[in-house]
Amino acid sequence: MQPTQSVLLVLIVALCALALVFSLGLSRWVLARSRGKPEMQKISDAIQQGAEAYLARQYRTITLLAVVVAVLIYVGYAYLRTPNAGDPVSDPHTLALYVTVSFLLGALSSGVAGYVGMWVSIRSNIRTAAAALSSLNGALQVALRGGAVAGMFVVAMSLLGVGLLFWVLTVLQPAGMSAGEWNARIPFLIVGYGFGASFVALFAQLGGGIYTKAADVGADLVGKVEAGIPEDDPRNPAVIADLVGDNVGDCAGRGADLFESTAAENIGAMILGVFLYRYFGVPGILFPLVVGAFGLVASMVGILSVSTAEDGDPMQALNRGFYLTAVLALIFFGVACRWLLSAPLQPAPDAWWHFFLCGLVGILTSAAFLLITQYYTEYAYRPVRAIAEASQTGPATNIIQGLAVGMEATVLPVFTIAIAIVVSYYLGRNSGLTNAAGEPIGGLFGTAAATIGMLGTAGYILAMDTFGPITDNAGGIIEMSQQPEAVRAITDRLDAVGNTTKALTKGYAIGSASLAAFLLFSAYLDEVFNYTHHRISVNLARPEVFVAGLLGAMLVFWFSSLAIKAVGRAAYAVINEVRRQFKERPGIMAGTEQPDYARCVDLVTVAALREMIVPGALVVGFPIAVGLAFKTLGVGAEAVAAFLMIATITGILMAIFLNTGGGAWDNAKKYIETGVYGGKRSDAHKAAVVGDTVGDPFKDTAGPSLHVLIKLLSTITLVLAPLFI
Amino acid sequence: MQPTQSVLLVLIVALCALALVFSLGLSRWVLARSRGKPEMQKISDAIQQGAEAYLARQYRTITLLAVVVAVLIYVGYAYLRTPNAGDPVSDPHTLALYVTVSFLLGALSSGVAGYVGMWVSIRSNIRTAAAALSSLNGALQVALRGGAVAGMFVVAMSLLGVGLLFWVLTVLQPAGMSAGEWNARIPFLIVGYGFGASFVALFAQLGGGIYTKAADVGADLVGKVEAGIPEDDPRNPAVIADLVGDNVGDCAGRGADLFESTAAENIGAMILGVFLYRYFGVPGILFPLVVGAFGLVASMVGILSVSTAEDGDPMQALNRGFYLTAVLALIFFGVACRWLLSAPLQPAPDAWWHFFLCGLVGILTSAAFLLITQYYTEYAYRPVRAIAEASQTGPATNIIQGLAVGMEATVLPVFTIAIAIVVSYYLGRNSGLTNAAGEPIGGLFGTAAATIGMLGTAGYILAMDTFGPITDNAGGIIEMSQQPEAVRAITDRLDAVGNTTKALTKGYAIGSASLAAFLLFSAYLDEVFNYTHHRISVNLARPEVFVAGLLGAMLVFWFSSLAIKAVGRAAYAVINEVRRQFKERPGIMAGTEQPDYARCVDLVTVAALREMIVPGALVVGFPIAVGLAFKTLGVGAEAVAAFLMIATITGILMAIFLNTGGGAWDNAKKYIETGVYGGKRSDAHKAAVVGDTVGDPFKDTAGPSLHVLIKLLSTITLVLAPLFI
Repeated sequence: MQPTQSVLLVLIVALCALALVFSLGLSRWVLARSRGKPEMQKISDAIQQGAEAYLARQYRTITLLAVVVAVLIYVGYAYLRTPNAGDPVSDPHTLALYVTVSFLLGALSSGVAGYVGMWVSIRSNIRTAAAALSSLNGALQVALRGGAVAGMFVVAMSLLGVGLLFWVLTVLQPAGMSAGEWNARIPFLIVGYGFGASFVALFAQLGGGIYTKAADVGADLVGKVEAGIPEDDPRNPAVIADLVGDNVGDCAGRGADLFESTAAENIGAMILGVFLYRYFGVPGILFPLVVGAFGLVASMVGILSVSTAEDGDPMQALNRGFYLTAVLALIFFGVACRWLLSAPLQPAPDAWWHFFLCGLVGILTSAAFLLITQYYTEYAYRPVRAIAEASQTGPATNIIQGLAVGMEATVLPVFTIAIAIVVSYYLGRNSGLTNAAGEPIGGLFGTAAATIGMLGTAGYILAMDTFGPITDNAGGIIEMSQQPEAVRAITDRLDAVGNTTKALTKGYAIGSASLAAFLLFSAYLDEVFNYTHHRISVNLARPEVFVAGLLGAMLVFWFSSLAIKAVGRAAYAVINEVRRQFKERPGIMAGTEQPDYARCVDLVTVAALREMIVPGALVVGFPIAVGLAFKTLGVGAEAVAAFLMIATITGILMAIFLNTGGGAWDNAKKYIETGVYGGKRSDAHKAAVVGDTVGDPFKDTAGPSLHVLIKLLSTITLVLAPLFI
Repeated sequence: MQPTQSVLLVLIVALCALALVFSLGLSRWVLARSRGKPEMQKISDAIQQGAEAYLARQYRTITLLAVVVAVLIYVGYAYLRTPNAGDPVSDPHTLALYVTVSFLLGALSSGVAGYVGMWVSIRSNIRTAAAALSSLNGALQVALRGGAVAGMFVVAMSLLGVGLLFWVLTVLQPAGMSAGEWNARIPFLIVGYGFGASFVALFAQLGGGIYTKAADVGADLVGKVEAGIPEDDPRNPAVIADLVGDNVGDCAGRGADLFESTAAENIGAMILGVFLYRYFGVPGILFPLVVGAFGLVASMVGILSVSTAEDGDPMQALNRGFYLTAVLALIFFGVACRWLLSAPLQPAPDAWWHFFLCGLVGILTSAAFLLITQYYTEYAYRPVRAIAEASQTGPATNIIQGLAVGMEATVLPVFTIAIAIVVSYYLGRNSGLTNAAGEPIGGLFGTAAATIGMLGTAGYILAMDTFGPITDNAGGIIEMSQQPEAVRAITDRLDAVGNTTKALTKGYAIGSASLAAFLLFSAYLDEVFNYTHHRISVNLARPEVFVAGLLGAMLVFWFSSLAIKAVGRAAYAVINEVRRQFKERPGIMAGTEQPDYARCVDLVTVAALREMIVPGALVVGFPIAVGLAFKTLGVGAEAVAAFLMIATITGILMAIFLNTGGGAWDNAKKYIETGVYGGKRSDAHKAAVVGDTVGDPFKDTAGPSLHVLIKLLSTITLVLAPLFI
């Protein structure tokens, strides 16, 4: 029997609450671990202070920007546009209020999720370091469970936000409208939530990304290259800023990114569910949230299952956890399909297993993305080795080879996405769902099901991701406090695994963004249809539409350029400050005087916040400008669609290029450090360090920001579509 | 009164013949100049020998490939597809014959044009060097007129080929078909000519581009970096190969590129002219050829006008020549519009001046592209200076800044193209041309007119381009034969100007390719309409179409990766050979023994030809595979269109990124060499040399090959469209 709306909402909220409690439990467990020796605590405290100070200021800036945008949304909806019969609620002020409040709630939830994740992560680093004093398995578990707090919290908050908003809105059902009709309109009111989440994610990822790489590049260029001191040497004034950066970039940034993915993609899938109302009713709309909530349970089991022998490979332990999570998520997915998508009386009895197969496609896609990313970024394989080999003839050939590898790395992911979209679309089409005219209509819901399947493991993936900055920081703390070699060996191993998991998460994030892209376009087109009662095609053969697409592709290049230059400028400020400290206080290099870490932290904070504004404003402002400009040519909605789609295509490719190139350079350097081609301090190694430095803003600033850009374009066009028509 | 077809064809052929005679006259004038001193001749002879040997082998390989493709085309048209009522001739064997012969003719003409251009250019270099012994103006004129032989020959051959083919086909008018109907079908038979030209251009540009940069990078890395000897030092065994490379890459490659542009775009515009038959008749179809022929006259005047005072700026002299050519071309364009597009009785009396304004848009677009390219690649301006500044902190920051500049450099060109397409489209729409239902239909012809306007100056531009390798070679000859400082100063100035003109031509080539892109899409859509009687939209909202677009964008990344890696591999072979010679024959470095130049030349020849096959085959094979694969899903024609359009968009952006990044790095190094940031041999200079080396395969291999790729995709889809439907 089909469950009622209340049952489903209670289930979703209950599972999310369970995940939050689980997350709280993990964080209590982590916080109860030892904080190690006092010299380690001193360093950890400095990192904690710097990260919290940065995040406080970053959120202040973002709050200000979000309020401005909220006011603009309210004014635009309430005063500037003429009400339309397709509006979900007829009073423009009420409509404006719903959208604006959704936006603010999305922004707030995303901010809270990012903050909590980072709060635990900067407390897990010291405990991981302390655990490493005695055991690899202990350190692995602290780091993963610390990361899992962030992972579970982010995904649960995202589901909870969308679920509760849906619930509240069902209660606000206007008089004179049937429940069915009202339920069908709710997702269009929630789109603001997705936009709010993307908005915060964009600035968090940009600001964090600029922070982390400015500090990293600055510290490396003066420390390693000019002064000749090793990485994480306590004499380097920028070293604390560098460690802070790992938290604010990788942890808070990627947390906001995946929060936003989950939110936007669930809303997109719910909008498609609306169009299948006559088949599945409310369960079809809530299907993505139920699967997400089940996925949380799968992730919990996966996280708790991870352990390693003292001489084991930690990466294999994490992989086992992932496969367990994926299998459980798939089983739950099947249960959800059978339960929610096969009402006994509905005319498409085979639909449920078609959509189950779509979910399988999604999970296979995520596995394929992880394998491809591994192939292109790990030094066991040909691409990274080719870069290392090219380093023998100097930095120029290292760079050329790295760029070529990054470009080549787009090939397999694109084939994967192409196959996944086409297969899931055809599975959906053949599911037996038809419209009144008998035409198949399940295709897009098929791609949605694949996306939902892919996102089922998001909690576990995000835990693995946050594992990265925690182990990186733990290594830094051990290094700076000069612990014994054996301890360093443990943190080095975990750090290497953390680098891999960070790269894999980026692969997963861009993979899910690509698969979801099509879902979000369809949501946009459905919204346009809802307003105009006219199904637009996005016809590139029209010159205006083609031109809009060209502008979309260009935005990706423009934005990447701005993001990369922002890192350069902020790094330049760090370099000058470190040089000044070395020059004015010769005691620092001699080891008799403590460098002024806090000044570097402050300086990067200010620089990163300043530099994130222009690229962020470009991403928000450009689609609006395009929409309004092409509206005057009479093709606003269609031009915006082409702009969105081609920006997405270009963004996917550029992000894969930047992420993979950066990761491959990093590991080519690490490969040489294992002793090949002359090992550390050889000319080949020097050349590889150049590549690694070039890759930094690629893989940790521009690349990950592009993931968010893609989704922000989708949500902003969803929210503002009524203004372009 | 409207002129008859015969009058127009005679005019076109006569003007092309005039241009060929002019070209012959110039080449006699150049060949009559002094060949300077014997030690200079020795070097020049070696270059000549190497270039001719390479070209002979390259054309042998390309001939083989072309014959294979010709056989496939014939078999595909004659046996594999079912005849269609829309076929221009009903007998499949005749149709196959026409298309195949057109293909072979296009390939042959392109090959001849490239060969002749290079033949003169490798004879002009020594004469430019000899003239530089006494006079700047003398050297400038020899180099430009030598370049002009190539420029005029290429453009005239391209027009002549299309014009004569049209003429021959009018004679072959089948019994039982009206002249009007037959004329309207001819352009669809000529499309093979454009494909043949693109096919040769792709391999010529790829092979030449790989050759030139493998030799350059190889010579630099061992010579400058390892052995510490200056550029063009006669002790470097790869130095002759490097000088040969300038000819086979820049001269033969770009010649084939612009041959192909002119051919493909004229055919595209003729196809649009067919659809306006009821307004303009045959003059509308021949309009692009007439304008092109007039443009040749404008270019001749421009070329002859160039001279400089001995203390003048040669770049200004070239610029004055360009502006004169542009103004004359615009006047001729107006004459052609008034004459051919305003029959006294036709119902759109204002059409002619609307299309004249479109031509103005095209000429302004070309000027804008030249100015933007100058801004981004000359060291008088901010972007290049920022790269030089970043070189102070080492190669990594130099690379980061250069990549950022390259990405940023896409912004203004895209706005320019966007405005040009929209403005010329709306001018065309408002020209008063309507279809039977009264809807405006002149829009696309407006964008075609803009393209034709832009290409009016192609002859002059190509002369400026070939000027580049000639002066580069002249500088090399002077350097290697150790002429006095004063002479070097002259060739250095000309060489610097040559670098600028080469960069400008690339800007022009990509600008015209972008503007023409839309024209060629329309031709493709018209062809599909002709076959299916159904106007397809290219609807990105369909998953299959979106996926095809994604694959198109990916092709650009894949191809770029292959092209860049090909240079790396070929350069590696050169490096090993040079190292071997230095090691086995210590007399070379001591100056007592002559290095074995010929071996390096042979080695690069073999490597370049081997390396061009895979990327070339990818570009030809991938669209066919996409077309056939999506045909099985029932959306062949539409998927191919999306593939083509999004590959074009991505290709335009990637080409601008690669060309501009490469050019900017080159000039950042030159800027430092003027003495800033420590000048030559400083650390900043070393960092800048890394950037310059990375930029080499960008700007001279992958970037220019992408121009050809864009157009090859257009022509191949035009020719093979009947197979995908």
